[in-house]
Amino acid sequence: MDLDVLITNVHLTTMADGYGEIRDGAIAVRDGRIAWLGKRADAPAGASVEHDGGGCWLTPGLIDCHTHIVHAGNRSGEFEARLNGATYEDIARAGGGIMSTVRATRAASEDDLLRQSLPRVASLLSEGVTTIEIKSGYGLSTESEAKMLRVARRVSEALPVRVSTTFLGAHALPPEFAGRADDYIDEICEVMLPALAAEGLADAVDAFCERIGFSNAQTERVFNAAKKFRLPVKLHAEQLSDQNGAELVARFGGLSADHLEHLTQAGIDAMAAAGTVAVLLPGAYYFLRDTTPPPVAAMRAAGVQMAVATDCNPGTSPMTSILLAMNMACTLWRLTPQEALAGCTINAARALGLQDDIGTLEVGKCADFALWQIARPADLSYGIGFNPCSAVVKGGQLRRRTMFDNAQHEKM
Amino acid sequence: MDLDVLITNVHLTTMADGYGEIRDGAIAVRDGRIAWLGKRADAPAGASVEHDGGGCWLTPGLIDCHTHIVHAGNRSGEFEARLNGATYEDIARAGGGIMSTVRATRAASEDDLLRQSLPRVASLLSEGVTTIEIKSGYGLSTESEAKMLRVARRVSEALPVRVSTTFLGAHALPPEFAGRADDYIDEICEVMLPALAAEGLADAVDAFCERIGFSNAQTERVFNAAKKFRLPVKLHAEQLSDQNGAELVARFGGLSADHLEHLTQAGIDAMAAAGTVAVLLPGAYYFLRDTTPPPVAAMRAAGVQMAVATDCNPGTSPMTSILLAMNMACTLWRLTPQEALAGCTINAARALGLQDDIGTLEVGKCADFALWQIARPADLSYGIGFNPCSAVVKGGQLRRRTMFDNAQHEKM
Ligand SMILES: [Zn+2]
Ligand SMILES: [Zn+2]
Repeated sequence: MDLDVLITNVHLTTMADGYGEIRDGAIAVRDGRIAWLGKRADAPAGASVEHDGGGCWLTPGLIDCHTHIVHAGNRSGEFEARLNGATYEDIARAGGGIMSTVRATRAASEDDLLRQSLPRVASLLSEGVTTIEIKSGYGLSTESEAKMLRVARRVSEALPVRVSTTFLGAHALPPEFAGRADDYIDEICEVMLPALAAEGLADAVDAFCERIGFSNAQTERVFNAAKKFRLPVKLHAEQLSDQNGAELVARFGGLSADHLEHLTQAGIDAMAAAGTVAVLLPGAYYFLRDTTPPPVAAMRAAGVQMAVATDCNPGTSPMTSILLAMNMACTLWRLTPQEALAGCTINAARALGLQDDIGTLEVGKCADFALWQIARPADLSYGIGFNPCSAVVKGGQLRRRTMFDNAQHEKM
Repeated sequence: MDLDVLITNVHLTTMADGYGEIRDGAIAVRDGRIAWLGKRADAPAGASVEHDGGGCWLTPGLIDCHTHIVHAGNRSGEFEARLNGATYEDIARAGGGIMSTVRATRAASEDDLLRQSLPRVASLLSEGVTTIEIKSGYGLSTESEAKMLRVARRVSEALPVRVSTTFLGAHALPPEFAGRADDYIDEICEVMLPALAAEGLADAVDAFCERIGFSNAQTERVFNAAKKFRLPVKLHAEQLSDQNGAELVARFGGLSADHLEHLTQAGIDAMAAAGTVAVLLPGAYYFLRDTTPPPVAAMRAAGVQMAVATDCNPGTSPMTSILLAMNMACTLWRLTPQEALAGCTINAARALGLQDDIGTLEVGKCADFALWQIARPADLSYGIGFNPCSAVVKGGQLRRRTMFDNAQHEKM
């Protein structure tokens, strides 16, 4: 067999059928794709390079399928002001909230926006993430949204990560359109989306369907425009209230409905029928001290596929750890560790429409793996703030990680 | 001025008086201690080595003042079983719970116990921690408690960290004493504590005062024994119910009362009068999905000093991130970022009786610092799972940390 890389002495968690455990396994790579996997004893000969996995567990590379990780500045000032007694009104009066991120992101150069975003992405990559989704939505003008999406593409050139981009023009109403939300939706459908699609900048289209965002009818107009450009849709749905967003996105055959704290049984049924993935975002629930969990048991019963993501954003989830998102999904919402891991592998791939390419260990899929110094896969969800990632393989290229961070602190 | 090291181009957060900010500052070290600090423009000449801090913020090295970080095995199996529907009864029947950690810790060799504990400690060190407290309490026999405390001492030889040890024999009732809790307290006071004190293994004495732990009267006997050996005391108090533990530990002039979810005003008043520190442990509250927060506002009003720690332990807080403990203290319990940082510096030092040596940037104190690539100190509490530590100084020795974890993934 003509192989580039063979990794032996690993336990595999294929995620192709539940955990899909293969103990004492091996996995082979050719041309950046999985060429063979199975029991170590059966491993083919003839690999150019062989790596000893040291008894680690090997999973598909993790996928963070919902982030706003490209943005300028942060909102720690608001965080501190609120904890010192400022009201949301005080903060709005002081120019805070999402519009402060919009102003900072609009003002930043493309290079600066990239420079500010890379450390956050690197934090995810250190935990075995090999694919991330990145949304626009802090530009809210053709030019600034294009800038954000170009930076998102550049992230995948600067770091060993695949990036899936999402146009989220319908994130908030820009000040230029104050009191004219329908006009802004026109702008999105007739100006912004055509321009971004022409440049090939968006892999999908998203919206924030909420009382404080856009209505169900406005969202539908955005989805119809996306359809013209054959772009798949997804939706920030039922986070703060039920807007029948899940039913809407399911009707469009959407990839995912995200958040879902106020999802109804009708929404669950629609998602199950359409195969729309539920993307769960416990970081925002935690940070906002929300008390209404999404209906996990009902979704499980209905066979809705569940993904888990960081929602990394400066206002409601300044989270850059996918392992912590997994722990929160288990601790706060009672997902099983197996569901949490599926939520950051196969189901996250489905939420991006990439399930034929990534998300499981199967012959023909991309050779994107994470290696973990753990006793069992559940350890990934159990730890709080512990990173047992010992190596990452992206497109067949292996990078080892120094386990002892004190060694990472190079003595001077 | 005869100096070993001068660090310039840093903003200092001295914690000596609130945040105590010195922008565009510098700090000098001689013989492992702070020799000078102030404005960069006033920095003394004559240092053997000069480091450019690159505009980072420099704080005292962080202190995790409550951990059970030395232990064997983990309890991810229970975590998974519970999420798959097992009851606490099922798990107890299967030999789970704290006794499974006691069995594993008793069975481990000293070397193995050290080997298993170091990655957890290293996780803390990567976040700028320079001092940790480590409790015994999974041995529950003279020999096994001594082994745990010896391993705790060895942690400080293996890694650049100061370790403060605490004897927690009164953590749980060992099976050998089933139904004879008072006899076990006799054993602690008359056999275990004298033996450990003779070996110099314990810097303090702790107990778990709770319905499922030991009574107030039993705890008092342990404290009286500690007094004989002039060892300071601290207490796991009012976590699950009010046992008047705070009043008890305050009456003994104790260093700290820890947990405190069910603390009463009488307990607060006693702690304030005695100068006993409140050690807040949000990791356990989060992991156990507790809903009764400790009375933070009342403690603040009474002038009780508050510390924040990870409580790193396999059963109720498998947490190895001090920054996450700070975020949880702010997010879940409304500490201000300034209080959270004081909680992991000066007040954590007070909880260990080390406030004359560490915890602030002041001339004469140990040269233990953390450098952070952040815009403002509040960023440390605001991020969720982000580690902006760029360097750590321990006893004057500087170690730089690679910010981009992808670079830490050495390509093979
Ligand atoms: Zn979002
Ligand atoms: Zn504890």
